Amino acid sequence: MTTYWRRLREIVSDRGPLCVGIDPHPPILSAWGLPATAAGVERFSRHLVETLGDRVAAFKPQSAFFECYGSAGIAVLERVLADIAESPALSILDVKRGDIGSTMAAYGQAYLADGAPLAADAITVSPYLGFGSLQPTIDLAHRYERGIYVLARTSNPEGGTVQLALTEDGEGSVVQSMIDAATAVNRESRQKAVGLVVGGTHSSLGCDLSDFNGSILVPGIGAQGGRMEDLPSLFGDAVDQVLAVVGRGVIGAGPDPQALRAKVDMLVG
Amino acid sequence: MTTYWRRLREIVSDRGPLCVGIDPHPPILSAWGLPATAAGVERFSRHLVETLGDRVAAFKPQSAFFECYGSAGIAVLERVLADIAESPALSILDVKRGDIGSTMAAYGQAYLADGAPLAADAITVSPYLGFGSLQPTIDLAHRYERGIYVLARTSNPEGGTVQLALTEDGEGSVVQSMIDAATAVNRESRQKAVGLVVGGTHSSLGCDLSDFNGSILVPGIGAQGGRMEDLPSLFGDAVDQVLAVVGRGVIGAGPDPQALRAKVDMLVG
Repeated sequence: MTTYWRRLREIVSDRGPLCVGIDPHPPILSAWGLPATAAGVERFSRHLVETLGDRVAAFKPQSAFFECYGSAGIAVLERVLADIAESPALSILDVKRGDIGSTMAAYGQAYLADGAPLAADAITVSPYLGFGSLQPTIDLAHRYERGIYVLARTSNPEGGTVQLALTEDGEGSVVQSMIDAATAVNRESRQKAVGLVVGGTHSSLGCDLSDFNGSILVPGIGAQGGRMEDLPSLFGDAVDQVLAVVGRGVIGAGPDPQALRAKVDMLVG
Repeated sequence: MTTYWRRLREIVSDRGPLCVGIDPHPPILSAWGLPATAAGVERFSRHLVETLGDRVAAFKPQSAFFECYGSAGIAVLERVLADIAESPALSILDVKRGDIGSTMAAYGQAYLADGAPLAADAITVSPYLGFGSLQPTIDLAHRYERGIYVLARTSNPEGGTVQLALTEDGEGSVVQSMIDAATAVNRESRQKAVGLVVGGTHSSLGCDLSDFNGSILVPGIGAQGGRMEDLPSLFGDAVDQVLAVVGRGVIGAGPDPQALRAKVDMLVG
């Protein structure tokens, strides 16, 4: 195995910077003619991986849509992650976990450790408890050559109340402090295991990514209003580090394999 | 069923404001002579509920320590939550979920909806995406007469970088904005479904809880350095709304039922 950053760079250079969101919420299951059950979620998710695993850089399963079926849903998530691991595509499990100490370490063990039933190539984490609280997952990402994506500037309008607040030291916003801390970790370790989540829906980001040295996961493309063609002007030089997440823009095509592949080709063709 | 706030007030007035943390991390399992497996977690957790379910107000299972065993761990968590539901004590599932839109609604369905395999009396939620992003879980808490606890001021030292930052409107800190928003929701709905997480480890809170009208979940008592006897001076008049979480201070007694009950009696006696 090689580091997450290298695996990602390699597959993105082959296939383009597209990550397909696996978001089996009830309306999309219904549109696909599937029941809103763990079995429906399984058919939806595995069909997506089977159909697109040979042509997208990554999949981002959304944990919430599996968790709502309890252990049956989590068993499906295990199988979906195993399917992705068997494909050339990478898995970015969207769990947005955030806690402290031994609890944060347990989340890291759950999702980043070799052999864990729910291990993914990378996960999302949430820093409301401070960037420093994420350290146990940073350590585990380095140990297992996996990645974490720290929520920095999210795609929703309400996010600014926290993310654009000014830190006590007077040096800038909360989001900027996350960017700077992630940059420092990546500079030190050289694995570049720490990525950032930065929504693609904003007209301007209100933060400076010019020194950032890792992967930038960009949700909000498509149904939420962000557009692939606006990414270069929004991200500037950092656009080369962007991995764009498209959910409904792909899965809205319905289950027909040709239609799904055509959506992907349109986005990265 | 009646509202979460009323169920909580009733049991706290009978039993005292103690919530026992169900934190089956590997070192405590080892100290109890149990393996660090889903089976070990099950024996630990169900023994705690069986032994203390007739005398504590609530249990707070920490989801991370179940998630790290994948679907097998989540199946155990389902049984532990079912055990708590059959006891008079309440369940506060510590999941710290935070997301937006249909994803946040799915987390609400997972943990707050009647009939969900993982339904708890209340859950913790994380507001890095803004208090407004929590709305789907607030709506579900109201519909099902359950509760949510919004992370406000956490017990760890790194939390201040986000929580004490000053909001853009210049009206105060992030933590104060969470307190004020929760207060407003509770004033409007009268269910008082929205509680707050405020760590008991700080020498002063740096925020104003005097208008707050819901439950205050206070972790950090015991091993992290907070002390039950300091709660009145720390929380002032709001101390009556405090539910103190003790983890190692109880489970550190080992599995002997008498020793466990003695720890609880010492804390709320």
